[in-house]
Amino acid sequence: MTTPSTSPSLFTPPAPGRTPDPALAHRRADAVLTVVGPDGAPLADADVVVEQTNHRFLFGCIGFELVDHANGYASGGSDHTGASAAEADPEFDARFAERWLDVFNMATLPFYWGGFEPVEGEPRTAELLAAARWFAERGVVVKGHPLVWHTVQPKWLLDKPLEEVERLQRERIRRDAGAFAGVVDTWDAINEVVIMPVFEAEENAITPLARVKGRVEMIRMAFEEARAANPAATLLLNDFDMSTAYECLIEAVLEAGIRIDRLGLQSHMHQGYWGEEKTLRVLERFSRYNIPIHFTETTLLSGDVMPPHVVDLNDWRVDSWPSTPEGEERQADEVERHYRTLLSHPSVEAMTYWGLSDRGMWLNAPGGLLRADGSPKPAYDRLRSLVKGEWWLPPTTLRTDSAGRVRFGGFLGDYRVTAAGGGSAAVVLDAPGEQQVEATLAG
Amino acid sequence: MTTPSTSPSLFTPPAPGRTPDPALAHRRADAVLTVVGPDGAPLADADVVVEQTNHRFLFGCIGFELVDHANGYASGGSDHTGASAAEADPEFDARFAERWLDVFNMATLPFYWGGFEPVEGEPRTAELLAAARWFAERGVVVKGHPLVWHTVQPKWLLDKPLEEVERLQRERIRRDAGAFAGVVDTWDAINEVVIMPVFEAEENAITPLARVKGRVEMIRMAFEEARAANPAATLLLNDFDMSTAYECLIEAVLEAGIRIDRLGLQSHMHQGYWGEEKTLRVLERFSRYNIPIHFTETTLLSGDVMPPHVVDLNDWRVDSWPSTPEGEERQADEVERHYRTLLSHPSVEAMTYWGLSDRGMWLNAPGGLLRADGSPKPAYDRLRSLVKGEWWLPPTTLRTDSAGRVRFGGFLGDYRVTAAGGGSAAVVLDAPGEQQVEATLAG
Repeated sequence: MTTPSTSPSLFTPPAPGRTPDPALAHRRADAVLTVVGPDGAPLADADVVVEQTNHRFLFGCIGFELVDHANGYASGGSDHTGASAAEADPEFDARFAERWLDVFNMATLPFYWGGFEPVEGEPRTAELLAAARWFAERGVVVKGHPLVWHTVQPKWLLDKPLEEVERLQRERIRRDAGAFAGVVDTWDAINEVVIMPVFEAEENAITPLARVKGRVEMIRMAFEEARAANPAATLLLNDFDMSTAYECLIEAVLEAGIRIDRLGLQSHMHQGYWGEEKTLRVLERFSRYNIPIHFTETTLLSGDVMPPHVVDLNDWRVDSWPSTPEGEERQADEVERHYRTLLSHPSVEAMTYWGLSDRGMWLNAPGGLLRADGSPKPAYDRLRSLVKGEWWLPPTTLRTDSAGRVRFGGFLGDYRVTAAGGGSAAVVLDAPGEQQVEATLAG
Repeated sequence: MTTPSTSPSLFTPPAPGRTPDPALAHRRADAVLTVVGPDGAPLADADVVVEQTNHRFLFGCIGFELVDHANGYASGGSDHTGASAAEADPEFDARFAERWLDVFNMATLPFYWGGFEPVEGEPRTAELLAAARWFAERGVVVKGHPLVWHTVQPKWLLDKPLEEVERLQRERIRRDAGAFAGVVDTWDAINEVVIMPVFEAEENAITPLARVKGRVEMIRMAFEEARAANPAATLLLNDFDMSTAYECLIEAVLEAGIRIDRLGLQSHMHQGYWGEEKTLRVLERFSRYNIPIHFTETTLLSGDVMPPHVVDLNDWRVDSWPSTPEGEERQADEVERHYRTLLSHPSVEAMTYWGLSDRGMWLNAPGGLLRADGSPKPAYDRLRSLVKGEWWLPPTTLRTDSAGRVRFGGFLGDYRVTAAGGGSAAVVLDAPGEQQVEATLAG
């Protein structure tokens, strides 16, 4: 059952213990915290307040709409390609930003080549860097999406010879992965490779390149260049194809000896919620590769769902697609069920919702957690009640024992302990189960 | 655009010139044949008869029903698992054999592990060897199907530990590929790997093994063991999945440095004829790997087609599925169109029809070219009119010139030239276009 030593294969047999646990024990710790005063002595028999400040789990959302806001000018309700779709409204943006930051700790920013560099040699680096820093300063992990894809391509790339397309693609990966290093350290290195060489919906320069190089060499190119420019980066392979095709592609990449840091699975559910059974089946199949999983693009609608006959979601274009009261109740339930299911699986490390509000949403769909006017749908409140309620430790007063110890349980993540008598310290719960931690008060 | 030298990748960019040609120029030669007498002198100004004796293209059919006949006892209309389904009828078998041999030059014989070795240690080697020799003696290329698959498995394999399953699977490949070497030199080394690790319809020992080893190592096992036992063998990877999943799997295998001799594509069309457009699209996609293609399993119905909602064809079980007059006319047209389309593509080297008669056919479907009573459907006559008519050179009298030369054109394959004055010789046309050949008469 061993692979020959000449093989670069990174395929590993599935490890045991990836069984889902709806009680989420794998996401919680029971901490014994010893609080130490600035003088180095345990803070005995004192009141302290312990509160959670961040989740270890990555609750993500796209941050496309906040790029303008972060740059100090009003957003036009940008869609994901960077085009403006609505009237500027700074107040809307401020409320939007507040609601965004109240729930999420990971942002996906748009690096679609065609939108990022509409004129050759004039990338929107400064603007995106400002946006990425805005998020990073607020404790948000920032992911760039994507470095290689066949859609939303620059027009100027179209008529160049393939060798030139490859050279420019390699340069673009290095340039952007390098320029954003330290701020954007997570990337969808390459997107939707299963369909890449046979994609026909839109003329582009990447599909012909993928046909000549093959899927695996396209992936190697993306990962090698990105890693060269930012060795610390967390690099994802991302796809919407949940069929055996994606399994086979992953096995091809592992056989080729290419290290995938994280596996990206999309779950745009415009045609209806998958349900627990399908979701767990997908997780079971894709967790076999022993690579942590990010759910990278999730949409759940609060209106009518798209008919099942639509194969490419982009083909469904409607002028009006309203959010309805019944749809909003259903969406709230489905959002809760989907998050609970994903968190129940030990392989899932991140979940990114694909758009906070209906304003400017992809396909004009009512997939936001806020309505187009910015008001919260039930799904927003439901998600917040999990992330900042059931799964969150609010400020809690505890009394230390004679050795300066308090006990508390909570989700993996960042905590702060503050003494009633002054001084505070950060505490991290980073492994499930019993944990001994110590915090020395300062300030 | 080069792969690193450390990579074992066998992926090669698509070569030019794989454009389909409905005129089939790539399958024809124009020969200038110099006929030499037994005395070594050109046979000048003489009448000779030139006739084709075989096609280079492999017109295949399953030979399952002829295993009993070849062994000298009456067939019970065996189905593909070896079970008997009808009354013995030696006359039926003799007519059946005659019609089989009149059209086909390649036979697929059943090596399903469960049927071939129903009791551990008692393989049906003698019986299958007799059948294979019967075909080989009649100039028919014999293919064994398959060495590894998850279906039609022996019951006795079920409760063994995985290491033991792997050991037995390896031994079975070596044993059978070795025992039949020289008679069966073409094998479906492994069948339907795309679905293998996620196959759920039937409990078996191979699916769990595939889950632990991964698809690529399963393929490596099949190809390595078969090649070790019969280095001269032509080994196929075979699948029914025509989606991007099979493309990704092929790329995985090429990345892993495993040589696939031929690519097997199934085309059971129980749900309706693909049509030229889909067929050419499939050919275009799978010819990119520069591996000759065998269409390994083709069925076209002469009755109602199966509804499109059926995903696993095995799920459609009916008691009666009649061949109808309209269905038979449609089938004849579709058979002709499908053969013309496949032969038009330079990458296609073989095409195997999945069952000559309706008697004992898989799924009880009217997919035969003969009816259950053995009488030819229009599709049989249509196919014969291509293979032995339009694409065939019948005995043709030609007169040699003063240098002993005659000119003739025909499909690539074997020919015989016979002098009116006595003596004959074999001639092979093995490359398209103009060919100079010489034949020395003997006998």
